Amino acid sequence: MSSVRRGEPADAPALAGMLHDFNLEFGDPSPGVDVLRERVAEFISGGVKQYLIALATPGEPTGFAQVDFIRSIWSQGPIAHLDELYVVPRRRGEGFGRALMETMLALAHERGAAGAEVVTGEDDAAARALYEGFGFANATEGVENARSLFYELEFE
Amino acid sequence: MSSVRRGEPADAPALAGMLHDFNLEFGDPSPGVDVLRERVAEFISGGVKQYLIALATPGEPTGFAQVDFIRSIWSQGPIAHLDELYVVPRRRGEGFGRALMETMLALAHERGAAGAEVVTGEDDAAARALYEGFGFANATEGVENARSLFYELEFE
Repeated sequence: MSSVRRGEPADAPALAGMLHDFNLEFGDPSPGVDVLRERVAEFISGGVKQYLIALATPGEPTGFAQVDFIRSIWSQGPIAHLDELYVVPRRRGEGFGRALMETMLALAHERGAAGAEVVTGEDDAAARALYEGFGFANATEGVENARSLFYELEFE
Repeated sequence: MSSVRRGEPADAPALAGMLHDFNLEFGDPSPGVDVLRERVAEFISGGVKQYLIALATPGEPTGFAQVDFIRSIWSQGPIAHLDELYVVPRRRGEGFGRALMETMLALAHERGAAGAEVVTGEDDAAARALYEGFGFANATEGVENARSLFYELEFE
């Protein structure tokens, strides 16, 4: 039995721990749990980003989604940008990712969003299958067989 | 001789016209110049998004960049998200895109951004070459030969 609820400032330590583990797993640098905890608390209390937390049993967080609502020039409503989606390694394959996606999309509709978006790696077959199952497409509008690519540049 | 300057509320009509032409060129639906003009004016006056305008001669806008500064959980500074980059068809190949990119990156550094990002189509060789020339990479961190893919879902 699983449930998903909105993250509150008191969830900052659990979210920071999962964010930190997330980055270590994928070999990315992490600013550390202390910095992450403060930033998550600031984001939640200031409404900067939304967090959804998956719970396996009351009190046991098994994953989270971090969502940003970004204004678009093309639509009245914002776009729900799924920044991060994570399920703890020992609880994967049990539907927590799907439950987080369902709640994220329900929240997006509730906020009047015009759509949703997410960036993922070409090699992450599980994430891609999850997103595609919800109807997400990796395609440039109006062009056949052209993928939509995400480019980034990190400053020094 | 070209220059790039920050967009002001009075630039909303010119920006709306270019945004509209941009979408028509790529076969995307446009909400129309009237709606775009109001939204651009709201974004500029409210500081929601930043606009940079390329000028060929004083008073002749030849292109623009639309930039969003988005908070990141991974860094103290925001990420400069380049939403749109456009040069009017008759003035392409003259360096306006490059000038807009240079000014966008200077603005990002001025705002203390930790990095910049942009989404483009796999088939848009000119845009990809422009971004790659500035050091942008389309790759998933830590994984060789895996592209970073942008997925989207439009709500009904």
